[in-house]
Amino acid sequence: MSVSQFLNEKAEKTERALRDQFATWRGVPEVLHEAMAYSLFAGGKRLRPALVLGACEIIRDDDAPALPAACAIEMIHTYSLIHDDLPCMDDDDLRRGRPTLHKVHGDAIAVLAGDGLLTMAFDVVAQTGNLAVVRELAQAAGVTGMVGGQVLDMQSENRQLTLDELRRVHACKTGALIRVAARMGAILGGASQTQLEALTAYGEAIGLAFQIADDILDVVGDEANLGKRTGADDARNKSTYPALLGLDGARQRAKDTIDCAIDALAAFGEEANALRDLARFVVERNA
Amino acid sequence: MSVSQFLNEKAEKTERALRDQFATWRGVPEVLHEAMAYSLFAGGKRLRPALVLGACEIIRDDDAPALPAACAIEMIHTYSLIHDDLPCMDDDDLRRGRPTLHKVHGDAIAVLAGDGLLTMAFDVVAQTGNLAVVRELAQAAGVTGMVGGQVLDMQSENRQLTLDELRRVHACKTGALIRVAARMGAILGGASQTQLEALTAYGEAIGLAFQIADDILDVVGDEANLGKRTGADDARNKSTYPALLGLDGARQRAKDTIDCAIDALAAFGEEANALRDLARFVVERNA
Repeated sequence: MSVSQFLNEKAEKTERALRDQFATWRGVPEVLHEAMAYSLFAGGKRLRPALVLGACEIIRDDDAPALPAACAIEMIHTYSLIHDDLPCMDDDDLRRGRPTLHKVHGDAIAVLAGDGLLTMAFDVVAQTGNLAVVRELAQAAGVTGMVGGQVLDMQSENRQLTLDELRRVHACKTGALIRVAARMGAILGGASQTQLEALTAYGEAIGLAFQIADDILDVVGDEANLGKRTGADDARNKSTYPALLGLDGARQRAKDTIDCAIDALAAFGEEANALRDLARFVVERNA
Repeated sequence: MSVSQFLNEKAEKTERALRDQFATWRGVPEVLHEAMAYSLFAGGKRLRPALVLGACEIIRDDDAPALPAACAIEMIHTYSLIHDDLPCMDDDDLRRGRPTLHKVHGDAIAVLAGDGLLTMAFDVVAQTGNLAVVRELAQAAGVTGMVGGQVLDMQSENRQLTLDELRRVHACKTGALIRVAARMGAILGGASQTQLEALTAYGEAIGLAFQIADDILDVVGDEANLGKRTGADDARNKSTYPALLGLDGARQRAKDTIDCAIDALAAFGEEANALRDLARFVVERNA
């Protein structure tokens, strides 16, 4: 199976489950429902759900126990994009080739749609029946993870970071959620401690490589493919991997990181091939 | 014990537990920590935590099992105030007699502090070890509850609501969280189905009475006591109980609702006196 087949299969499964979740919520004001759906069903790659489901599948050959966690993490990722795009944050007009949510429904509905997705994500992840997974997700998305990383990222504008500082920002801002995707899948698959550690190392490396690739795409990417502005990091005077390492240096660093991710899967056999291909995809993608 | 002693005891217990939670979060950017603490430790009445702890206590004579839920609900209440006060929402400058969070730290930090409190609330409530309680809280705070109610409330500005419509807005916007406070306490105390239903009815009545009282205070209250602007509902042309029923009619409705709340506690003995007094306090308070 190719990586795009793998991603499509996991994306379809996740989207079906997300629509099923929406259908169980009674009495939601129509505009709120529309706003959440607008952002959630906007054709994202569904990388985080694929990691959740893929990690579960290599442990127990079945991704079903991880499906609520896959939905929840995509809801949290989507809320974070909605709030990031707000005028008081990054003030972005375009996301995945379409106007950002606040451009369509106004800032107030965008704040509330984000709040709604974040809150409901915890109803959804609790459906896994696993309290440890609920806590892992909250910690990765919260002030010790993604939300904390957002603040670090804001503070780093117009300031030259060292490589270590840059890594810390991204380990929180984007890394924590990608890492916990792999961890939730592993835990829900019933991983041993050794397997959990291996998939955690894999998730950490994927998170780092993803960010390096993102920084590279912001320099060399095609706006039409990306569906968002490029050059934004430069315009905001933000530290990036290409700025610190040069473009070739950043590309090499991304490749090395992917090698680490693949090495972490050494104890798994052929059943981990999809995750190996996914690792390569993360740095080779053009959007 | 007087109702203010009861509220003080529960508030102190909750604040101590909240500070303990904060202390376990490592690596939180200082400004984010400060922003969350500014809003969370601003001298609120802690009505919702008192309901959680009080409901648990009348079932098992011990409120300790409900303490994480008490913390979580106050974190969620606080996040909702922070986001409500934002310029793109109610645009309020004053809250509990102090500048609102976005006036102190800017809109972006206010959005993120709210997101952080909301997210961490689910790490905290999961510490009860009870998945049903996690789901109840998410549903009450989410798009079928508080967030949905916020949207209904926005849509009702400049429009004359019927009494039924007004009740529905508030049942979601403020009622759902107050109702779930009583429910979480009951569940964590190990309530029977009958006890849970009684405390649910109590919580629903308290939620409604609280809102009627709030509407009355917005007309006749003292800004110095309230620590926020009065007359805001009128300025926004919002439907309120005094507007629909007249001031005396609204006062009578509040009293009747409190009688319902107290009736719901009939099967409990003296151990429910604190909750009975709390019901009266909800409509007799002046802030």
